[in-house]
Amino acid sequence: MAKERRDEFALIDLLTGTAKPLPNSIQSRISIGNGDDAAVVKGADGFDWIVCCDTMIEDVHFKRQTMEPYDIGYKALASNISDVAAMGGIPLFYLVSIAIPATWEEEELVEIYKGMANLAHEYSMALLGGDTVSSPSSLMVTVTVLGEVEAGRKLTRSNAREGDEVFLTGTVGDSGAGLDLLLQEAKTISPSFSPLVERHRRPEPDVAAGRILAQSGSRVALNDISDGLASESWEIAQASHVQLILYEDRIPLSDAIREYGKMKQIDPRQWAYYGGEDYILVGCVSGGEKEKVADLFQKANHPLYWIGKVEKGEPGVFLEQGNGTRIPLLKKGYNHFRGKEEEVE
Amino acid sequence: MAKERRDEFALIDLLTGTAKPLPNSIQSRISIGNGDDAAVVKGADGFDWIVCCDTMIEDVHFKRQTMEPYDIGYKALASNISDVAAMGGIPLFYLVSIAIPATWEEEELVEIYKGMANLAHEYSMALLGGDTVSSPSSLMVTVTVLGEVEAGRKLTRSNAREGDEVFLTGTVGDSGAGLDLLLQEAKTISPSFSPLVERHRRPEPDVAAGRILAQSGSRVALNDISDGLASESWEIAQASHVQLILYEDRIPLSDAIREYGKMKQIDPRQWAYYGGEDYILVGCVSGGEKEKVADLFQKANHPLYWIGKVEKGEPGVFLEQGNGTRIPLLKKGYNHFRGKEEEVE
Repeated sequence: MAKERRDEFALIDLLTGTAKPLPNSIQSRISIGNGDDAAVVKGADGFDWIVCCDTMIEDVHFKRQTMEPYDIGYKALASNISDVAAMGGIPLFYLVSIAIPATWEEEELVEIYKGMANLAHEYSMALLGGDTVSSPSSLMVTVTVLGEVEAGRKLTRSNAREGDEVFLTGTVGDSGAGLDLLLQEAKTISPSFSPLVERHRRPEPDVAAGRILAQSGSRVALNDISDGLASESWEIAQASHVQLILYEDRIPLSDAIREYGKMKQIDPRQWAYYGGEDYILVGCVSGGEKEKVADLFQKANHPLYWIGKVEKGEPGVFLEQGNGTRIPLLKKGYNHFRGKEEEVE
Repeated sequence: MAKERRDEFALIDLLTGTAKPLPNSIQSRISIGNGDDAAVVKGADGFDWIVCCDTMIEDVHFKRQTMEPYDIGYKALASNISDVAAMGGIPLFYLVSIAIPATWEEEELVEIYKGMANLAHEYSMALLGGDTVSSPSSLMVTVTVLGEVEAGRKLTRSNAREGDEVFLTGTVGDSGAGLDLLLQEAKTISPSFSPLVERHRRPEPDVAAGRILAQSGSRVALNDISDGLASESWEIAQASHVQLILYEDRIPLSDAIREYGKMKQIDPRQWAYYGGEDYILVGCVSGGEKEKVADLFQKANHPLYWIGKVEKGEPGVFLEQGNGTRIPLLKKGYNHFRGKEEEVE
């Protein structure tokens, strides 16, 4: 929030708290309501519907300086596909509501839609419609995605239990480091750092990992990395009433981010913890299922990193350093444009 | 559009034209795609899913001067419910994406959500989630609604045929006249005009009429009055490749709008044609089905007005005056805040 106001989660609770009780006919159709990555409602034919929407706003979520129009469209859809992935689902349809300021050229708008269309094509997703309105100032893009998942599969944040193992489905931090690089306004970007920029502008949602987990039959707690590993781990810890212990030296980092951190003389893990928008998945499965899940990922030739464990206790997230010392990992997100970390709860 | 740019429909065609061909597995699930009030996708159990989204933006779609926060929430949901009604469907779920400027108080935001919650309660609809972000300037509310309709029922704009009768499911123009009244900034509003203001702020979507028509088994062309009778009739004429002839003296007007027109010395039908946001339904059924449909509405104690007929010819809409003279009804909408009519296509 631009203004001092309660944090986003408390505000959402306050606003959604205005809802009135539902009759059972509709309540019974809601498998997962407010408060996870996406909602799940009962369809039939053995599938549940997944639905979610996300808004991206110029100068709040992106700047024209750091994102091409194509990338804005790509990312607006990618963040929603990632929410479907975090429910273990298959994305199917999308709607786009766009508010357009007079300063945007038609060619740029077409590029935004091309960014969405090309990503949609990768997933065989269909554009179903939406709304096109004028905006008095910033460009705003709201994307709604519908998907489906096998009935009864609930890969929610609240599924973590004591004794679980914590995993990541890819390296983390690149997107945040890429943004850091873009905000330097360097004229040229060294080729060795271009994977960071690419991952900031066109992150790949990890539908494949979500599907492996949904089909595994295992109990899985799952979240996508939209706000950084710290914030997403905290969401699991709070929803599941557990503690997540992450091993500092097991956080998977790309070569590019290691090199970039070295150049800037900064521990690159700061972008992993607080950067966000990597759109890989973080989750927990029971210790007994670890081997089975690892096998499934290996057969699919998909990366999987075991980065921590779940313990009982007051909800929280801790980093365990090489010497066994534990330090609390704060629940904060990185505010992109203020250039400082910020408590989100 | 604030800027000179192609009209909304042409822009949407341009933007959605970036989509790539779909595999049959997904194409075959789309019953109605882009270009009608809402999209319809195949569910199962004999029902299709309906999905639509609409955005309302401060100073584009409403002003704080004319709409209370409660009304903004109410209307943002109502316009989407109306799109579901225009497909003959039952609204079930909604998601809200809201972009909040720092100038809005928390209490006002709660009022916005209350306006939605109370309307949702009338229809037993459930809030499924959404997104809450900060806005650099205007308040923006995007609502997505999911609903359902019996499989195979398509009450689209393209269903009109030569020989059809044109109907309205309520009086029309009140919302536009109510806005006109509110923009006068009169200190007090005469009680005889308060129904106009009420209908502008809290229009009732006509789900009941849509359901009667969906269950009638008749071929029905249907559209909801969001942009005025002229524009909505044009949409049917163009989608169906026919002419709609509306009888000027059969346009149903409320007592309040007649009186308001008299006071302002203006033909109140201008608000009916160009005002919009009445959210009743305009449609066409074959002459042979007219009596059956009229009976269904009478049994449901729901108003129904027969206002015209469908002829073949170049797509267009004409007003037939009492003396038999026909004049073209232009496809234009009323631009609320410029205070002048404006071509929309």
